[in-house]
Amino acid sequence: MGDMIRDLPPVASSSSPTTRRNQLFLGTFVHSKTREALEYLHDTAVCVDASGTIVAVEPGYDLRRSETELLPRLGWKVGDVEVHVGGEGHFFFPGFIDTHVHASQYPNVGIFGKSTLLDWLNTYTFPLESSLKDQKKARRVYTACVRRTLAHGTTTSAYYATIDVDATNLLADICLALGQRAFVGRVCMDREGLCPEYYRDESPEDSLRKTRETVDHVRSIDPRSEIVAPILTPRFAPACSSAAMKGLADMQKELDVLVQTHVSENEGEIELVKELYPESESYTDVYDAHGLLGEKTVLAHAIHLSEKEATTIAERGAKISHCPCSNSSITSGAAQVRWLWDKGIDVGLGTDMSGGYSPSILDAARQAALVSRHVAMGLRGEERERAKLTVEEVLYLGTKGGAKVVGLQEKIGGFEVGMQWDAQLIGLPLVDEDGEQGEGGGNVDVFGWESWEDRVAKWLFNGDDRNTKTVWVKGRMVHSRR
Amino acid sequence: MGDMIRDLPPVASSSSPTTRRNQLFLGTFVHSKTREALEYLHDTAVCVDASGTIVAVEPGYDLRRSETELLPRLGWKVGDVEVHVGGEGHFFFPGFIDTHVHASQYPNVGIFGKSTLLDWLNTYTFPLESSLKDQKKARRVYTACVRRTLAHGTTTSAYYATIDVDATNLLADICLALGQRAFVGRVCMDREGLCPEYYRDESPEDSLRKTRETVDHVRSIDPRSEIVAPILTPRFAPACSSAAMKGLADMQKELDVLVQTHVSENEGEIELVKELYPESESYTDVYDAHGLLGEKTVLAHAIHLSEKEATTIAERGAKISHCPCSNSSITSGAAQVRWLWDKGIDVGLGTDMSGGYSPSILDAARQAALVSRHVAMGLRGEERERAKLTVEEVLYLGTKGGAKVVGLQEKIGGFEVGMQWDAQLIGLPLVDEDGEQGEGGGNVDVFGWESWEDRVAKWLFNGDDRNTKTVWVKGRMVHSRR
Repeated sequence: MGDMIRDLPPVASSSSPTTRRNQLFLGTFVHSKTREALEYLHDTAVCVDASGTIVAVEPGYDLRRSETELLPRLGWKVGDVEVHVGGEGHFFFPGFIDTHVHASQYPNVGIFGKSTLLDWLNTYTFPLESSLKDQKKARRVYTACVRRTLAHGTTTSAYYATIDVDATNLLADICLALGQRAFVGRVCMDREGLCPEYYRDESPEDSLRKTRETVDHVRSIDPRSEIVAPILTPRFAPACSSAAMKGLADMQKELDVLVQTHVSENEGEIELVKELYPESESYTDVYDAHGLLGEKTVLAHAIHLSEKEATTIAERGAKISHCPCSNSSITSGAAQVRWLWDKGIDVGLGTDMSGGYSPSILDAARQAALVSRHVAMGLRGEERERAKLTVEEVLYLGTKGGAKVVGLQEKIGGFEVGMQWDAQLIGLPLVDEDGEQGEGGGNVDVFGWESWEDRVAKWLFNGDDRNTKTVWVKGRMVHSRR
Repeated sequence: MGDMIRDLPPVASSSSPTTRRNQLFLGTFVHSKTREALEYLHDTAVCVDASGTIVAVEPGYDLRRSETELLPRLGWKVGDVEVHVGGEGHFFFPGFIDTHVHASQYPNVGIFGKSTLLDWLNTYTFPLESSLKDQKKARRVYTACVRRTLAHGTTTSAYYATIDVDATNLLADICLALGQRAFVGRVCMDREGLCPEYYRDESPEDSLRKTRETVDHVRSIDPRSEIVAPILTPRFAPACSSAAMKGLADMQKELDVLVQTHVSENEGEIELVKELYPESESYTDVYDAHGLLGEKTVLAHAIHLSEKEATTIAERGAKISHCPCSNSSITSGAAQVRWLWDKGIDVGLGTDMSGGYSPSILDAARQAALVSRHVAMGLRGEERERAKLTVEEVLYLGTKGGAKVVGLQEKIGGFEVGMQWDAQLIGLPLVDEDGEQGEGGGNVDVFGWESWEDRVAKWLFNGDDRNTKTVWVKGRMVHSRR
């Protein structure tokens, strides 16, 4: 990460458009046209205004034609426009959207032993999260997490912080300063018994008051939620009192913000929910009964849902964050994305650090392909074939799918006029005639005979942050690598 | 890979020990003590003589004590010895052993769509392999493959090349020149019907004659098989005639070399074997009946074995190469390593490029952990817990386990006196107080409070070739990265 850090642009003091110029991007642009298909726009010009909004997407334009026809049409003077050329072997791709990630667990990535959800929480997770009440430690951990995920092309994250107000506010400050679009949530967990005494909100009132404090802070630093926004975050039903969940549901309606939680991740957890909420028909029903299931709800995991639960989620318009790396790592199970789609539910991807070990949504997309194949192994015939997710589908999950999950489908996830320039420049250098690779290509070797579809597949399966050369959020360059 | 290539040491014209000096390695050494446990040797000195053999492993020695006590004891003059110090945040680890890899398929990594074994062979694999009769293309592909896998710390590979004699011989030349320990096999496939007409040995005699030519070549360039050795390579039962398999079994006994093939990878393949060999009781039985099942046999995959097949394999002392990345990618199934171990079978890891997309055995070890968790998801109670492989177990698979599979357990896979210095230096730099990482740490962030066990877990799950700083085979530095 050394390169990256030296090259980071100076942190702007605000996201004010007056500090920025209009920009022209030239080259190949790849994004999801539909869930099943990527669109490849070659020799294309994309114009981004000083506020970070895409104002033109024009195939068939090189620099010369852009300067003589396109910029004049926009009323932009050639000398005033910042030009970025993708160049040979490069393409622009929408920034990734991580719809479920615990910033506070970042130092624990890869550390999970043979645990499953409930023992993992007690052994690894609660002690680390609790320790972030130390603001110095929190700053170090959150800065590392945001820098690392930006380097992997994550332009938007839905973060869980900890129960600590100051540390949660700090995470929002860091996201704004480093320029990562983020939903930042203070974790609510007030239920006696499951939550450890050393790491618990004192009461439902305490949960709600502290949540309100973080909402107020996030809104004070970014009043129009241009980069950072609050998200209500009841940890999960076993950790929350009914009173707290009801209070958060009311707050959600009042403030009209997103809410995020976990559902049906692990069989032991599901049993526990049954015991704790004997009056509820299912895990999903617990959230529904508390008023927490709506169009602005992001449910992580949803691995072991019943038909009826999936139908309820679809009816409420709630969204699901699929976390394949976490599915496999802590042996939770294999979520069935095709089945969720068949029910009409919107799905995005989450790294779920540190239940998932990887900070990368590219890796999550790869693992979504693999987990879907493990789902397929348990099926027969046509269902088996259908269960497998394609390259195009998993990249959709990581971009447009994620945008829908966090309610930003009009703003991010693709290259269309009116959307924001949240993007990454991907580079895949060629292996030369002697079998040696050019500078900075990372782990992908392109031989030159591959189709564009094959190059994108190679990037999906062997690419990493080394291929992510530059990252922009709302037009601002937030990461670059030589 | 740019850095790596510039830094590659000049290719020595031979592996003659006279060109080399005695070497002293100092720092932390980590290797498998047993299948279940890693040994951490801190403040340790390892002495490697000019032939690449470890002659001392001494805990409690720093440079000063080594110079005053250890080197004199060995009769080595201080000034004549090359010293390598691991340094803070670094450790030496045995080189990885890839027990199943198709060098000829390297350009196709990541390109497999939604295919499974048999259509994957026809769509992607046979056309590429066939094209490597072009020696210039073969040189480019094989060089890229060997450099790439060396960069990932693979010090030994069991390679499938193609049916082409010259290209196969070229692969052996390249391995010897670049210093990667390798078993190099010309692929035998002579059965009409399954093999495409454009890519098939003409007859059993043709298969055997051409195999003998490559064996002779490999033995001529490295008469004592110090770095490269031949391996007989009947592709798999559906692609080989009975006559060819019998001939290869005879050749194996005559030459006392390894033999490698595939078994029980995919359900369609198993059905096909049943049709083609109606007289055989099982897929395994086909090889057994042809005399191909013995202590020097490496069987790739072995996913869907019956109890009886596993027992036969154990009785014959044949070995299994587990290829988890390939298991998941082309939806073959999830091999059951714990069950194979319970049967008493030795197991190693294979990347199986390009059925598996990743060139890295570290990644294969990671995927072995994940695939074992998918196996576990189908089991209950204690069996479920047991099925999961630990960090220690998957790293064993990639080193000592692999060494047993290729019959080199006395020579490689660990740090013991009398073994060869096939090793890699791993670096895991610290995140500083501001959440920024030092130079060259790649994708792993260490905060400083982690135990050594946790650091190794972090490396397993998020490490990549950037953490592999230097690689040695038989004492020779074959890769380094700044």
